[in-house]
Amino acid sequence: MNNMVVPVRADIEDAWEKIRPYIHKTPVLSSSLLNEMFGAELYFKCENFQKVGAFKFRGATNAVLSLNEEALSRGLVTHSSGNHAAAVSLAAKMRGARAYIVMPSNSPEVKKQAVAGYGAEIRFCEPNLRAREDTASEIIKETGATFIHAYDNFNVICGQGTVGLELINEYPDLDAVIGPVGGGGLMSGISIAVKGLDPDIKVYGAEPLGADDAYRSLKSGKLITHHKPDTIADGLLTTLSERTFAILGEKLDDIFTVTEESIVGCMQLIWERMKIIVEPSSAVTLAAIAENNQIFRNRKVGLVLSGGNVDLRNLPF
Amino acid sequence: MNNMVVPVRADIEDAWEKIRPYIHKTPVLSSSLLNEMFGAELYFKCENFQKVGAFKFRGATNAVLSLNEEALSRGLVTHSSGNHAAAVSLAAKMRGARAYIVMPSNSPEVKKQAVAGYGAEIRFCEPNLRAREDTASEIIKETGATFIHAYDNFNVICGQGTVGLELINEYPDLDAVIGPVGGGGLMSGISIAVKGLDPDIKVYGAEPLGADDAYRSLKSGKLITHHKPDTIADGLLTTLSERTFAILGEKLDDIFTVTEESIVGCMQLIWERMKIIVEPSSAVTLAAIAENNQIFRNRKVGLVLSGGNVDLRNLPF
Repeated sequence: MNNMVVPVRADIEDAWEKIRPYIHKTPVLSSSLLNEMFGAELYFKCENFQKVGAFKFRGATNAVLSLNEEALSRGLVTHSSGNHAAAVSLAAKMRGARAYIVMPSNSPEVKKQAVAGYGAEIRFCEPNLRAREDTASEIIKETGATFIHAYDNFNVICGQGTVGLELINEYPDLDAVIGPVGGGGLMSGISIAVKGLDPDIKVYGAEPLGADDAYRSLKSGKLITHHKPDTIADGLLTTLSERTFAILGEKLDDIFTVTEESIVGCMQLIWERMKIIVEPSSAVTLAAIAENNQIFRNRKVGLVLSGGNVDLRNLPF
Repeated sequence: MNNMVVPVRADIEDAWEKIRPYIHKTPVLSSSLLNEMFGAELYFKCENFQKVGAFKFRGATNAVLSLNEEALSRGLVTHSSGNHAAAVSLAAKMRGARAYIVMPSNSPEVKKQAVAGYGAEIRFCEPNLRAREDTASEIIKETGATFIHAYDNFNVICGQGTVGLELINEYPDLDAVIGPVGGGGLMSGISIAVKGLDPDIKVYGAEPLGADDAYRSLKSGKLITHHKPDTIADGLLTTLSERTFAILGEKLDDIFTVTEESIVGCMQLIWERMKIIVEPSSAVTLAAIAENNQIFRNRKVGLVLSGGNVDLRNLPF
């Protein structure tokens, strides 16, 4: 498959038909109190309630369901210390396949346990991208396992796009949809789905100022692949790929950066007022609305709460 | 009104018609993972998502809506340091009435702020029941305000019962419903509603072992009104009234006590696996299922998550 194959809306609809027996159709919540605070109608798509606690399960499931029996028998491999690792592990388990997860040796204990809990085989490596890629390559050589990239993968992007499909099918009259940008897989899929259904709906990305590579890439038109992210939003540390850069450049209406203070403040607001647990990466979207309130005022806005995996013993408030 | 007037199902249906424009019809969530863990189908009625973060808003709203303009103009009064105080405050504000809330001087800052945030007038008193009642009486003498008891009140019981009405209307084939017992207002209303709709549905109460006055009252047939509760479930410290004792004695199929360890463990399970914020009093119901698993195995069980107000800076895990 060409590295730069880009999905269209129909691909995302196909993905949804394939994965729907396996995923949760997550609820959309709203809060009259937050609507009042922000002067907008906010619709929160709760992927924190998705299996493994994050939208990543959609993409991983779609990728796994796209493999034939022979490929499945050789297993799956990915490198990730976060939600994608858990998602690939559970998706593999679901189909009786082995999952090899390459994790940096300094990954938090709670993440190691989560991945191990889904029955995956963990291989530790030095905490840098080179070591992660090398270790994954070794596993592929040993086992013939299929590598599933966290975002630079056609089937993964289609799976993540089903978040947007479900949201617009349930709330077709939204004025805008906003979600967080890390590697760009989620917002690539969502922007294709949403613009495919109704090009008048605005689609925005939100990114921590401390990891603003996508913002700078999209504003300059030149893909940045090296940066030193410094943010509490641990799901948004990666850079775009050529493919997600191309998709977002074409589809996104704009991208906003937000401060760490806004992220933590909005995370606490969601916990205290909506009584749901979201990780910092999820709060980035509400933070973007807080920091750019004039754009969203009196609008109906869909916000993607991307995940809910946090260490309860180590909260930022 | 006779102190011992007891509602019937039709009263709860009337209450629901009255309060429905003001309350949230809370969602019912389920978790395939928890279902697997407990070998049962669990349906969580999320009153933690209710306005003020607890079911108490239903009863307070019903009580406030039952007052005429003249009574409203004199205001409302209650003594409580918890969710009922916030509920009466917001219900009063909604109708443009004054609320006087008597709070023990040692109430946590976060609770004082919540009540003040709803615009209520707080009167502090010594931290004992006598001082609370005396201070409330003084306010009534001064202002002519109407006292709204947290559970020994016909309209409050009817309002709380709408939790059960909504649950059974949405899931009519439940085998059982279980909820926490403090003063007994919630489970009085729910048991009347549920048994009125289908007497074959079991209705159970759950109580911390460290505040097991209702358990002992119901098992001995003799109302206990003095005890020294010691539990993290701060919403379940009060004793039954004559009225709630009579209702629960007639309607409840059984009541279970649970350990502090179970409460904290189940609270953490709900946070980590369901990604929702519940207070310890809510976790008492899942704890009862954990400690009495044989009774609930292979059953469809509705659980009431009564509230979600916790101090995020002071978690038990």
